[in-house]
Amino acid sequence: MGKYTIGVDFGTESGRAVLVEISTGREMGTAVYPYSHGVIDELLPDGGPRLEPDWALQDPQDYIRTFQNAIPQVLKESGIDPADVIGIGIDFTACTMLPVKSDGTPLCDLPEYRNRPHAWVKLWKHHAAQPEADRINRIAREMEEGWLDRYGGKISSEWFFAKTLQILDEDPQIYTAADRLLEAADWVVWQLTGVETRNSCTAGYKAMWSKREGFPRREYFKALDPRLENVVAEKLSTTIIPIGQRAGGLTAQAVSWTGLKVGTAVAVANVDAHVAVPAATVTEPGRMVMIMGTSTCYMVLGTEEHIVPCMGGYVEDGIIPGFFGYEAGQSCVGDHFAWFVEHCVPAAYDEEAKAREVDIHQLLEEKAGRLRVGESGLLALDWWNGNRSVLVDVDLTGMLIGATLATKPEEIYRALIEATAYGKRIIIETFQKNGVPIHELVACGGLPEKNKLLMQIYADVIGLPIRVSASKQTPALGSAMFGAVAAGMAQGGYDSIYDAARVMAHLKEVVYTPNPADQKEYEKLYAEYVLLHDYFGRGGNDVMKRLKRIKAESRR
Amino acid sequence: MGKYTIGVDFGTESGRAVLVEISTGREMGTAVYPYSHGVIDELLPDGGPRLEPDWALQDPQDYIRTFQNAIPQVLKESGIDPADVIGIGIDFTACTMLPVKSDGTPLCDLPEYRNRPHAWVKLWKHHAAQPEADRINRIAREMEEGWLDRYGGKISSEWFFAKTLQILDEDPQIYTAADRLLEAADWVVWQLTGVETRNSCTAGYKAMWSKREGFPRREYFKALDPRLENVVAEKLSTTIIPIGQRAGGLTAQAVSWTGLKVGTAVAVANVDAHVAVPAATVTEPGRMVMIMGTSTCYMVLGTEEHIVPCMGGYVEDGIIPGFFGYEAGQSCVGDHFAWFVEHCVPAAYDEEAKAREVDIHQLLEEKAGRLRVGESGLLALDWWNGNRSVLVDVDLTGMLIGATLATKPEEIYRALIEATAYGKRIIIETFQKNGVPIHELVACGGLPEKNKLLMQIYADVIGLPIRVSASKQTPALGSAMFGAVAAGMAQGGYDSIYDAARVMAHLKEVVYTPNPADQKEYEKLYAEYVLLHDYFGRGGNDVMKRLKRIKAESRR
Repeated sequence: MGKYTIGVDFGTESGRAVLVEISTGREMGTAVYPYSHGVIDELLPDGGPRLEPDWALQDPQDYIRTFQNAIPQVLKESGIDPADVIGIGIDFTACTMLPVKSDGTPLCDLPEYRNRPHAWVKLWKHHAAQPEADRINRIAREMEEGWLDRYGGKISSEWFFAKTLQILDEDPQIYTAADRLLEAADWVVWQLTGVETRNSCTAGYKAMWSKREGFPRREYFKALDPRLENVVAEKLSTTIIPIGQRAGGLTAQAVSWTGLKVGTAVAVANVDAHVAVPAATVTEPGRMVMIMGTSTCYMVLGTEEHIVPCMGGYVEDGIIPGFFGYEAGQSCVGDHFAWFVEHCVPAAYDEEAKAREVDIHQLLEEKAGRLRVGESGLLALDWWNGNRSVLVDVDLTGMLIGATLATKPEEIYRALIEATAYGKRIIIETFQKNGVPIHELVACGGLPEKNKLLMQIYADVIGLPIRVSASKQTPALGSAMFGAVAAGMAQGGYDSIYDAARVMAHLKEVVYTPNPADQKEYEKLYAEYVLLHDYFGRGGNDVMKRLKRIKAESRR
Repeated sequence: MGKYTIGVDFGTESGRAVLVEISTGREMGTAVYPYSHGVIDELLPDGGPRLEPDWALQDPQDYIRTFQNAIPQVLKESGIDPADVIGIGIDFTACTMLPVKSDGTPLCDLPEYRNRPHAWVKLWKHHAAQPEADRINRIAREMEEGWLDRYGGKISSEWFFAKTLQILDEDPQIYTAADRLLEAADWVVWQLTGVETRNSCTAGYKAMWSKREGFPRREYFKALDPRLENVVAEKLSTTIIPIGQRAGGLTAQAVSWTGLKVGTAVAVANVDAHVAVPAATVTEPGRMVMIMGTSTCYMVLGTEEHIVPCMGGYVEDGIIPGFFGYEAGQSCVGDHFAWFVEHCVPAAYDEEAKAREVDIHQLLEEKAGRLRVGESGLLALDWWNGNRSVLVDVDLTGMLIGATLATKPEEIYRALIEATAYGKRIIIETFQKNGVPIHELVACGGLPEKNKLLMQIYADVIGLPIRVSASKQTPALGSAMFGAVAAGMAQGGYDSIYDAARVMAHLKEVVYTPNPADQKEYEKLYAEYVLLHDYFGRGGNDVMKRLKRIKAESRR
C-alpha cells in the first residue's frame, strides 16, 4: 500500500489541495476552493467604513473553509484511503498577517471588532502601510541597525512590522486587544494542530528575525513607537521553528474538517515561493529558482553569508535547512503581458485569433517569434509596476523607446518580454557579483508552461540554461513534500527535505539553452537597457518620480 | 454675372479641383480624382525591377487625368458657365520631380524607358536618396557653402538635388536622356500653358535657389560629381518666376481636357503648404500658419532675414511676395494618432464606439478629454517618424515614459497629442528666439476640424491663441486665389494676393485660447519634455540611433 501526503497552497484568490504519492511524487488529485470573500478591498463582509485605496484584506474563515472543502474533495476524487495520508504541509502568501486572541480566535470573528478593518487579515498586497515602512527604514538607518543590510537596506510596506505599526497607528484598540500578531501561515497550522508555532521562513523574510540575532532589539522598537517596545515579548512567540520540522498532529476538530486521521503529521508553515524551491528539485546552491506568475520571485541558496545590495533579503535556514536562502523579486512579469493584451491589442488581432481558434497570447507569441533579435528597434524598461529588486523603487514607471509608425503590436509585446529578461539578468548579475554563484535556472509557475518564446528569450538574454519544474503546482507539491518530512521515514515519509526532493521533485525534459547568435545580439541590447536603467533608475533623470508627483497633484 | 477661379490641389493619393467665387471666396464645388496608379512603391505599372524600400513614385499621366476628370466634373456639378472661369492655379506636393524631354514628354512615357524606375516621377516621400543627401551636406560643409545656413544647415533627402543625384548615381542613362529635370508642379503648368516656367517657391525651398544668389555655384556641383558641373544650365531653367505671376494661358489641348476657355489665365505653380498661407488669411508677419494633416507644416512670414538653426528653410518671396517665408515641419502628427488607432486600441473600445455610433477617434477624444493635465503620469517624445525641425534627425524614434499597470489607452492617446504639442512649442520658441516674431497661430487642414481637444491642448501648451481657417480645403482655395491674381483685376480677378486674401480668405468664429490653469500645469510637463528631448536628441544618449543600427543589421 502506498503512502500519501497532502500539500495545501493558500493563494490570493483560492486555496488548493494536492494529494501526492510519497514514493514517486505523483500528483494523484487536486481540489481548489475559491475564497468566498476573495480579496476584500472595498467593503467588509458585515459592514464598516469603506476601505481606502491600497487596502487588501481577507477573511480567515476562508482558510478554514479551504480545509473543509478542498481536502475532502481531493480525497474523494483520488479515491485514496485517508488512513494512507501520513502528512500535511501548507504554504501561504506572505506577509499575510492577522491579530488574534490567545486561543487563536481572529479579532475579526469577535462581534465587537467585526466592523473594524484592522481586525481582519492583511493580505500580502495590502499596500497602505507605506508611511510606516518609511518610518521603519528611516529609524533603522538613523540607529544603524545591522539587520537592515540583510534586506538590501530597505523594508517593504508589505512586511510584518509595517503592517503591525499601521494597526498601532490607526487603531490602537485593535493592537491592544490582540494577544498575538502572526502570519496567516502559522495561524492555519495552529488551527490544524492546536499548537502555536512560528516558522523560520516568514520570521526571517518578513519580520526581520535571524537565527543568530533574533528580532531587532527593544530599543529599536521603542524608537519606532514607545508602545511597541515589548512587541516581541507581548505579541509574538520568540520560539521560531525551522522549516522542515513537524508542528504537531491533526486535532479532532481538524479531522472533522478534513476527514483525515487524528494525529496526522503537520509540517511547520511555509511560504508559497520558498516551498517551491525543493519541489523544483533545488536543494543546493548555484541553481536559481524562478517562480513566474503575475510577478516573479527568485530564490537561490548559498553556503556563505553575503550582503547583496538592494535584494529582497536572505535568511539562514529560510528555504532549505543548512543554507542561506537569498530572494529577489520582479514586480511585473505576467501582469505586464496581461496589461498589454487588455489595453493595447487591436481588434484585428482578436479577430485573427478567433478565426484561427488560438489564444490571443498564443497569436502574439507566434507573431513575436517570427521577429529577429533587434528587428523591432524597440527597447523597454520593465517598471510598469515599479522595481522591486536592484533599484527597490515603487515610483519607477514603464518606458518604451524606439517606436516608429511601422511599429506593430507584436513588436511591443516582444519588447516587453525582453524588458523582463533584461530585468532578470540584472538581478542575476547582482547576485553573482556579490558572491552568490548561479549557473542554472529552474522555472516554475504558470508562464513557463504557456510561453516557449519567453523562455527562449530569457535563456538568450541571460546566457544560462533554463530548466522547468515538472509540476504545474510546485508550491502545493513542495508543501506535500514538507508534509512527508514532518511524518518522517518511520511513518513512511522522509527524514529530510533532501531525501524527499530526490524522489518527489522532477524536471521536464525540455531545456532552454542560449542560442549563441541571439545571445550575442542581446548583449548589445542589454548594454542599452543598463544605460537607460541607470539613467532613469539611479538619479540621472528623476522624471519618472516627478511625473508621479504631478500625477498625484492633478488628482487633488 | 459672377467670375470664378479654379484651384487644383495635387495631393499624394488624388488631385482635387475646387471652383471658387472670386467676389466672396465661396467654394461652389469640389471634385476629386483618385490617381489610378496612386503611390507606386513596389512595381511599375508595366513591369520592371521590384522597387527597393523607401521608394515612392508616381505616374505623371495621373496628373493629366486629374485635369481631364476633376475640372469637367466640378464645372458640371456647380453649373457654372466655363466662360465665367477666368483663372486657374495649381499647388503640388514638393519636392515631387521628374525627368522630361525638351518638349515636356516624361521619360517614363517613352517605351524605351518605361521599365526604368528612375524615369518616373519621384514623389515627395521617396526617401531612397539619403546617401546623396548626406553627400550634398558633407561637401557643402567642407566647401563652406553659404546657402546651407538658409536651410538650417541640412538638406533633406526629399529635396531636388538629392533626387537628381540619385538618378545620376544609379541610372546615368536616364540623367543623360533627360533634357529637363523639374518639379511636377511646374510640369503640370507647362502642360496647361505650353510654356515652361519655374516657380520661386519650389526653387527656393527645395532646390537651394535664392532670389539674391541664384543656385549654388558650378564648383560646388562639380565637387558633388563632375558630370553635375553644368546641371543648372543643362537641365534646369534659370528663369525663376515669382509666385503670384501669370504663367500663361490655357492651350487648345488643355481646353480639350478641361472644357475651359482658350487663354484662361494660369498662375505660376505653387506648393500645397505654402499656398495655404494666404488662404488662411495670413499675408503679414506674426501669425504662424499650421497645416495639420498626417504631418504638420509651419509657415510664418518675416520682414527681415534671420538664420533660424535647424528649420526647414526660408525663401524670399517664397510664400508671399515681399516677405521672407520661413518654414518648419513636424513629421508625425495625424499619422501618430492613426498609428495609435490602428495598432494600439483594444477591441473593447471599438465595440463601445460601435455601440454608441461614434467614430473611434471621437471616443478616444471624449475619454482623453476627461483626464486632467498630468493625470496620466505619461510623457512621450513625438518622434515616431523622426524629427524634421529643431533636431532634424530622421533616426530619432518615439518614446513613452510613465506607464503603469493602470495606464489606459486614452491616456496614451492623450500623451501622444501632448507630445506633438510640446514639439510644436519647441519649433515656435526656436523661431521666436531667433528674431521671427509669432503671436498667433492659424490652423488649417483636416485635424483642426476633427479634434477640439487637440486644439485646446495645443493652445494650453503653446500659450498662444489659435484660430482656424474657414475652408476645409485651404490649399485648393489658395491655388484658386492665385488663379484670380493671375487673371488680374482687369479680367475680374485681383492685382495682388493681398487683395485676393482680404476678400476670399476667411477664418472660423472659434478661437482656442489658453486656459491659464492648464497652461501652468503644462509648463511643468514641457520642462520634462525639453529635458528628454535634449538628452535623446542632442547626444546625451544616442540609444535611438544605436537601436536603429541594430535593427538595420538584424535584417541582413
